[in-house]
Amino acid sequence: MAPIGGVMLGTNRMTRVLEIDVTNRCAVVEPGLINLWLTRAVAARGYFFAPDPSSQMVSSIGGNVSTNAGGPHCLKYGITTNHVLGLEIVTGSGDRIRLGGKVWDRHGYDLTGVAVGAEGTFGLVTGITVRLLHAPEAVKTILGLFATIDAASEAVSAIIAAGIVPAALEMLDDVVIRAIEAGVGAGYPREAGAVLLIELDGPRAEVEMEAERSAALCRARGALDVRVARDETERALLWKGRKEAAGAIGRIAPSFLLQDAVVPRSKLPQIMREVQAISARHRVLVANVFHAGDGNLHPLICYDDRDPDELARAKAANDEMLRACIALGGSVTGEHGVGVDKAESLELQYAEVDLNFMYRLRRVFDPAGLMNPGKLLPSHPACGEAFRAPRPVLPEGAWV
Amino acid sequence: MAPIGGVMLGTNRMTRVLEIDVTNRCAVVEPGLINLWLTRAVAARGYFFAPDPSSQMVSSIGGNVSTNAGGPHCLKYGITTNHVLGLEIVTGSGDRIRLGGKVWDRHGYDLTGVAVGAEGTFGLVTGITVRLLHAPEAVKTILGLFATIDAASEAVSAIIAAGIVPAALEMLDDVVIRAIEAGVGAGYPREAGAVLLIELDGPRAEVEMEAERSAALCRARGALDVRVARDETERALLWKGRKEAAGAIGRIAPSFLLQDAVVPRSKLPQIMREVQAISARHRVLVANVFHAGDGNLHPLICYDDRDPDELARAKAANDEMLRACIALGGSVTGEHGVGVDKAESLELQYAEVDLNFMYRLRRVFDPAGLMNPGKLLPSHPACGEAFRAPRPVLPEGAWV
Repeated sequence: MAPIGGVMLGTNRMTRVLEIDVTNRCAVVEPGLINLWLTRAVAARGYFFAPDPSSQMVSSIGGNVSTNAGGPHCLKYGITTNHVLGLEIVTGSGDRIRLGGKVWDRHGYDLTGVAVGAEGTFGLVTGITVRLLHAPEAVKTILGLFATIDAASEAVSAIIAAGIVPAALEMLDDVVIRAIEAGVGAGYPREAGAVLLIELDGPRAEVEMEAERSAALCRARGALDVRVARDETERALLWKGRKEAAGAIGRIAPSFLLQDAVVPRSKLPQIMREVQAISARHRVLVANVFHAGDGNLHPLICYDDRDPDELARAKAANDEMLRACIALGGSVTGEHGVGVDKAESLELQYAEVDLNFMYRLRRVFDPAGLMNPGKLLPSHPACGEAFRAPRPVLPEGAWV
Repeated sequence: MAPIGGVMLGTNRMTRVLEIDVTNRCAVVEPGLINLWLTRAVAARGYFFAPDPSSQMVSSIGGNVSTNAGGPHCLKYGITTNHVLGLEIVTGSGDRIRLGGKVWDRHGYDLTGVAVGAEGTFGLVTGITVRLLHAPEAVKTILGLFATIDAASEAVSAIIAAGIVPAALEMLDDVVIRAIEAGVGAGYPREAGAVLLIELDGPRAEVEMEAERSAALCRARGALDVRVARDETERALLWKGRKEAAGAIGRIAPSFLLQDAVVPRSKLPQIMREVQAISARHRVLVANVFHAGDGNLHPLICYDDRDPDELARAKAANDEMLRACIALGGSVTGEHGVGVDKAESLELQYAEVDLNFMYRLRRVFDPAGLMNPGKLLPSHPACGEAFRAPRPVLPEGAWV
């Protein structure tokens, strides 16, 4: 097959669905399978694969497993680790191991759970057994328009406190709204200070009732307007703005830093005020998109990369925001993993004693440090037991 | 405080709820807290702690964490690991480590997940952060009566295939029914070959609708009768039989071996036929209680311990049943852990290469083998990298 973007497409990408077992509600797939393809493969039988990162049209299930990806619907359905039943891995030590299987209850140590999110540092994932869920009978999407982020945050708290578990609960601020409307256009009113996208799914009777309750709670918390998508076309339009938010920012800034951090849900109003204060102090424009239901924020710090001073201010603002999240009991990565970018920042969050256990765990699977070196864990020498194996010398252009 | 059963009650038991944080839907507890006490502590605010092993009136949350306990309601709510957000552990290496926290998304390796179910082999758990769930608006319990286990199993498949996710889906066979009715009495008709206990919870409208659908599916699969508990008293009575099933067996046999194994749900009818064939071959009476929804079976193998031949036959039947579960793609332990009893049987399920990774993982946390030696993993010498540290000599009566 033709090489696309330097990567050869073909069977060596391991993109097959190996087995669909609806009786046991699971599927066995190869790691290169595109996330959305699995739901497409099982939709006709009434099932779906729940983890839905916004990248699901292009990201592979192997990638979702390695980063333990989230997505808008993880509020109700959980993150990737909650949907992986078994893994086959060729470890850095050269062993081929099988973890977990089709049954839910596990036996011995839960190595499957710890391998999800290991970002390739244990070895190569060669097979994945995932859960399939029964597709909900009905889905309803509501758009709440608010004057301020604070008011929208209060509506979020009220919905959660009422015991409603929306499938998704997304918030966008005024900067994002204007960028989207200048670009793709999703019908969000430009004068709103924040929009709240609420999606409910489940049995039809429940969805209708909870949609009414959610709309009433938005109005009681001062919503300027509440709109309910009447059909699939309107629903897709409301989601279109959210899913293309990051791209739309390109209309208002030459570059941006997309951050991914988490705070306990109760701290959302406080972190939003801190994000605004930090951006004002560093004179950078910040746009906000976030999974409000689970406290996962995505500030987009706008800057012009031709201006070194602005770049420096953007980076400083970014660091302060991450520190503020940790200070509020949160985490510096929500759903996008650690990689190289955030490896050093784990030291902000963990004590050296905690990190040392992670180094030791890595060595269990990859004693010589061959697998994705430099990823996931900080490499500085202060860690007494740090993973100090020399980085392997690889032929130029090798894909590691 | 007075010693009870040789154990001193008091603050050294670590039984406190340290924090209830309903905004973030979590609680921080000490490991000695009795499971049911947590739900009692938060019930007035409309919350509950989902893992509900049948032992929940006496078992501690620390014990639930160490065995990764399940319970009748894990079909809908998942097992203990799905409800633990953070742990504090004093490891075998003498380090005090903090894993996870209040936020859902994790960062770095998921050590919390792998420590749940470690059965004390990593160290002492000294603090636990758990999720709290909003109590459902309504609960409805249905009893389906069937002529045979096969017919009841078909009803289970039909309910699951219809996309209904009951909170619990329990099955009991004729031997258990008769034992219960001879003892505590739960109103199960003695002539039934099997009863199916179906519990639905959630918003009232949904519960009503799904109760009707479940009842209709039972009738369509040949149920002799379908009863719906009209109030909390009737509901408690239906559950009383299930919860006291193991005790009731004492009326029909001097001793029994209670097994805990799992097969993929689709294999339930097949394993039930094999269990019956095995018990006939070894001339032992077997009573069956199981979490039908998730394929977790609990055969109770009855014997008289004064008869060495019968004891030998009971043990042989037990071994054959476990092997049959593994042959069908299942596991030799569902929710009750491995301990000493099943440590050797891990070799039936895992290849040596897989087990070696478990030994190496254990050494990460407990390099000298001080913590719960002999538990969870087989100790035989064939494992090249086996955990061979000498067992520590402890003063007589020490509590390990």
